[in-house]
Amino acid sequence: MEKIKVTFHPTGEMVEVERGTTLLETAKDAGIFIASICGGDGICGKCRLIIKDGEVEASPTTHLSREEIQAGYVLACQTKVVGDVEVLIPPESRGEGAQILVDADAQRFRALYPSTAEPAFFHRDPLTQKLYLELPPPSLQDNLGCQERLFREIRRHVDAPVMQMGLKVLRTLPGLHRDRAWKVTVTLGRRGGTVEVIQVEPGDRASRNFGVAVDVGTSTVVVHLVNLVTSETIDAEACYNSQIPFGEEVTRRIIHAEREGSKVLREAVTSDINNLISTLISRNPVELNEVTTLVAAGNTTMLHFLLGLDPSLIRKSPYIPAATVPPPVRAAEVGIKINPRGLLYSMPSIGSWVGGDITAGILASGLYQAERLTMLIDIGTNGEIVLGNREWMLACATSAGPAFEGSGVRCGMKATSGAIERVESFADGEITYRTIGDVKPKGLCGSGLIDGIASLFQAGIIDRSGNLLPSRSAYVREREGQLEFVLVPGERTETGRDIVVTQPDIENVLRAKAAIYAGAKILLESTHHRFEDIEQLFIAGGFGNYLDREKAILLGLVPDIPLERIRFVGNTSLIGAKTTLLSSEAYERCFEIAKSTTYYDLITYPNYYEEFMSAKFLPHTDLDLFPTVARWLNKDQIVTEGLTLKERD
Amino acid sequence: MEKIKVTFHPTGEMVEVERGTTLLETAKDAGIFIASICGGDGICGKCRLIIKDGEVEASPTTHLSREEIQAGYVLACQTKVVGDVEVLIPPESRGEGAQILVDADAQRFRALYPSTAEPAFFHRDPLTQKLYLELPPPSLQDNLGCQERLFREIRRHVDAPVMQMGLKVLRTLPGLHRDRAWKVTVTLGRRGGTVEVIQVEPGDRASRNFGVAVDVGTSTVVVHLVNLVTSETIDAEACYNSQIPFGEEVTRRIIHAEREGSKVLREAVTSDINNLISTLISRNPVELNEVTTLVAAGNTTMLHFLLGLDPSLIRKSPYIPAATVPPPVRAAEVGIKINPRGLLYSMPSIGSWVGGDITAGILASGLYQAERLTMLIDIGTNGEIVLGNREWMLACATSAGPAFEGSGVRCGMKATSGAIERVESFADGEITYRTIGDVKPKGLCGSGLIDGIASLFQAGIIDRSGNLLPSRSAYVREREGQLEFVLVPGERTETGRDIVVTQPDIENVLRAKAAIYAGAKILLESTHHRFEDIEQLFIAGGFGNYLDREKAILLGLVPDIPLERIRFVGNTSLIGAKTTLLSSEAYERCFEIAKSTTYYDLITYPNYYEEFMSAKFLPHTDLDLFPTVARWLNKDQIVTEGLTLKERD
Repeated sequence: MEKIKVTFHPTGEMVEVERGTTLLETAKDAGIFIASICGGDGICGKCRLIIKDGEVEASPTTHLSREEIQAGYVLACQTKVVGDVEVLIPPESRGEGAQILVDADAQRFRALYPSTAEPAFFHRDPLTQKLYLELPPPSLQDNLGCQERLFREIRRHVDAPVMQMGLKVLRTLPGLHRDRAWKVTVTLGRRGGTVEVIQVEPGDRASRNFGVAVDVGTSTVVVHLVNLVTSETIDAEACYNSQIPFGEEVTRRIIHAEREGSKVLREAVTSDINNLISTLISRNPVELNEVTTLVAAGNTTMLHFLLGLDPSLIRKSPYIPAATVPPPVRAAEVGIKINPRGLLYSMPSIGSWVGGDITAGILASGLYQAERLTMLIDIGTNGEIVLGNREWMLACATSAGPAFEGSGVRCGMKATSGAIERVESFADGEITYRTIGDVKPKGLCGSGLIDGIASLFQAGIIDRSGNLLPSRSAYVREREGQLEFVLVPGERTETGRDIVVTQPDIENVLRAKAAIYAGAKILLESTHHRFEDIEQLFIAGGFGNYLDREKAILLGLVPDIPLERIRFVGNTSLIGAKTTLLSSEAYERCFEIAKSTTYYDLITYPNYYEEFMSAKFLPHTDLDLFPTVARWLNKDQIVTEGLTLKERD
Repeated sequence: MEKIKVTFHPTGEMVEVERGTTLLETAKDAGIFIASICGGDGICGKCRLIIKDGEVEASPTTHLSREEIQAGYVLACQTKVVGDVEVLIPPESRGEGAQILVDADAQRFRALYPSTAEPAFFHRDPLTQKLYLELPPPSLQDNLGCQERLFREIRRHVDAPVMQMGLKVLRTLPGLHRDRAWKVTVTLGRRGGTVEVIQVEPGDRASRNFGVAVDVGTSTVVVHLVNLVTSETIDAEACYNSQIPFGEEVTRRIIHAEREGSKVLREAVTSDINNLISTLISRNPVELNEVTTLVAAGNTTMLHFLLGLDPSLIRKSPYIPAATVPPPVRAAEVGIKINPRGLLYSMPSIGSWVGGDITAGILASGLYQAERLTMLIDIGTNGEIVLGNREWMLACATSAGPAFEGSGVRCGMKATSGAIERVESFADGEITYRTIGDVKPKGLCGSGLIDGIASLFQAGIIDRSGNLLPSRSAYVREREGQLEFVLVPGERTETGRDIVVTQPDIENVLRAKAAIYAGAKILLESTHHRFEDIEQLFIAGGFGNYLDREKAILLGLVPDIPLERIRFVGNTSLIGAKTTLLSSEAYERCFEIAKSTTYYDLITYPNYYEEFMSAKFLPHTDLDLFPTVARWLNKDQIVTEGLTLKERD
């Protein structure tokens, strides 16, 4: 076969490949990172490259605009080399900034946790722990067997009426004891009311015990590495969920699993988790073997895929999962690479559509012990809402879609370095924004998008229906039949491309926020409450750190209640998983939470669709629900064209 | 390669093999059964064939006498074919009679169990049980997950606070429920204080639950197949332990494992068990998959080999096992082929040298609840003795050797069809004997050997030292430098060969009985008792059904106490295992027995060797210990030549 030279800029790395190889494969072979979510199916549109010179054969794609194609942009996975070629990897396609994300994210975590309103202090008692033991050597008078001798010594330190030990571990005991003068470190794991001796190591290894907390989101997977001895978060890492090509939403993925089997979905997510763990291990002084525990939070379907459970009953009435309380399993059994005998704990789910991520959220936010009426809104690909206090809890789920996680939005991105997370104002026709990492902007994360759209509304550039009004700003333009607003022109962005908010982006966001708002309203009504009765409102989500509460109200995402009652509590799914990792007591509490929270099925509510439609405006068709916004609208005489009387009905 | 024709008689089957193939391999290839314990190493001497015609190349062996070699006898494994050959498989090498054994053995079991002195009636509650459940189908109001729905239903029938279910089973639930209208059969297993859902089957399978009780003896392995629903013993099968080539005694096998690894020993015994189970399955209307439980009893080392545990600490002071209470494990994990998720329970051991077989024996004999002072003597390759009552129990072990199990004795055999199990008298110079199955005799099992030697003593043909006296009988002859007594001449045996008792046979038996008697005496003395204090004496062992108590006393194997106090209780290791299989309560009781029985180390007793030497006479050097025998000796003026004063010291 003819060999072709491919040179990647800006680094100048050159690779020889066979004619017909795609640029994505070429880069992979050369160990050059190019952003890609779908792994080469042409679906995600993230593997953008610019052809500077040479011949390629590119398949058509809807992910690139005419201008971009003219500027030489291609999708690496859809482009085959046919002659020597020089390509430029634009900033948005590079793997840079991951470190910044991680540091920022880790700091964010540490900063956020104490801010939850009702701090719960659990007894520090990690789900797995290591104990260094010096056993009394046997004698003719004290001739207990190796196993019984070990159990006796463990019971001197730990309350463990029922202990279990696998044959593999039992088989190591005589040699270990004999060779190590009865000095060993045992790893103990909690498992369904029993204590399991997971492993026995020679000598004192008690200070080397690590765990990972995993948030398996529909769109993103986040892993934190935790020192189980000091409780310290060592490092964090995140990626898009590689299941996305099988469907942006949970239901699509279940249908895919029904048709093609769930293996590929399980492998996608375990591979994500393995890659993230492996990255964390590689840059920290921790051995994979020292990671003994994994706690996974996620919605019920995500946890089903992770465990290889059939999720098909979840999507059909009466919507039941294979298990709401999956047992702890050996992580290796589902293909997760930590210590081969390490345990994987799943956060218990409340029901098919309110999962372990919400149980984790209730735990982390302290809602379960709140004395006052509290609402928790977790904004992810699904938007789940919990209402209640220490006496009762009611939860529902809405299908918000992934807009706030940077997916399904033209310039959307994860809350990583270069993401605009805050938009200040359009006062002088220019916008003021802040990016994560204070670098040149690459795109918009969830909070930036909320800010951006609210600011456009505030400036009268979109009307209450969300329509972009070209007459109101020179930055509103038409491209390929669609209106879009240029937030940051290309000359000021990291990518050189304009960062825009398109009309479909706005519609996606309105649909998402309407679904969430309608859900919140129905939960309240069904318990005979009104929005003003909410004494604490927690907004959770992995979509960024910063949230401008006023703008969120203006958008109608968050109800119009006094600002001091609203608090952004971060990724509570992950925080809850981490709390559980560090405390068996918290794990027990999760079971109580999952059991005592009532699932409210929105579909059974007669007017759900009407509530949803009414909320698809800025902030809502019924301005009485948003008195602050109404006052401000009157004062500032905001543009209301586009909102017809008919729509108001 | 040159092909050679081998014809096996009496069936006339003809096989073609390559020159140089051994006769054992040839037979194996042709599916012709030839008795073999060692599997072809020339050690056991059991694969005897007679060459009728043709050329062979036979390696020298000590297992055949000069006469036999002249008569054409060869060992199949030590003989290669070099030309066309006609061979005869003599009766003792054929696989016939197995069915008879099984029937007899099964009957024997049923007959024996009620005869144990203190019958213990345990609540019928098999270690694993099947439950047919019709679950209420889910609804929007009752939308518990599949697992939780199943657990709820199980708890309506069974007290199971802590339930466990493996991921493999959990994964089957949604499909099973959906396709089978929520009608399933669950198999529940007891596991360390928890209840495990071992498997879930579609439809009603509750009546199809089977288990196997296994006695893993040093010399023989016995398996009974039990219907766990009806408690009925369906069938039984036994074979020699294939570990024998690695050492007749436990210690030799441990040394072999230390040098070469224990894998080969584990594989030998698991292969024996698998073969026996497979035989039982093949001739009964039971599927392997329906066998959900195995309970194994055996000495501590045998159970270590079965589980793949390192036994090396057992043979060195302070003699500790890897575990005295091994956890239930999945049978498949140790290579046992029953239901892939079926459980293997090991009977808990008392210590390194008093194993789960003795715990089983204490359970089966009812010693643990005896009100009167009771002794249990289990005669196997090791002779274990337990003394006590419901208040206290003391146990010790002696190295008896396998004579009573038909090994290490010229014409010894297992208690199977054709074995002389009873020898009546030498009144008219001829003997009266009874064989198992009432067929022509092939050899002597343990009880026949005891009878035979006692009868020789009674008839004055051996003296109190056990020496054969040629002057006393025409049937005492010399062969290859050794004296032997012809019990049954060849013309009346199935094999055509004389059945003899040799001088070394007698010495082996005397050593074995002396070890046991000395152990019993020391246990009594250490608790300040005498033989006459024993109110119940249970003799256990798999060496045959019949035991002539008078002859056993005459031999000095059994102490001289009133006959009505002595009872033969059969293979209590197996009976105890079977009781446990059928009752979780019995299993719990075993733990209490193992824990509350004190191990007495004979080695620490200062005069053990002297006691042993004193007991190596008929019945003992000290006739005061055997007053009945002494009276009889005086009355019948039995020959006492050979017993010198020196030996008496």
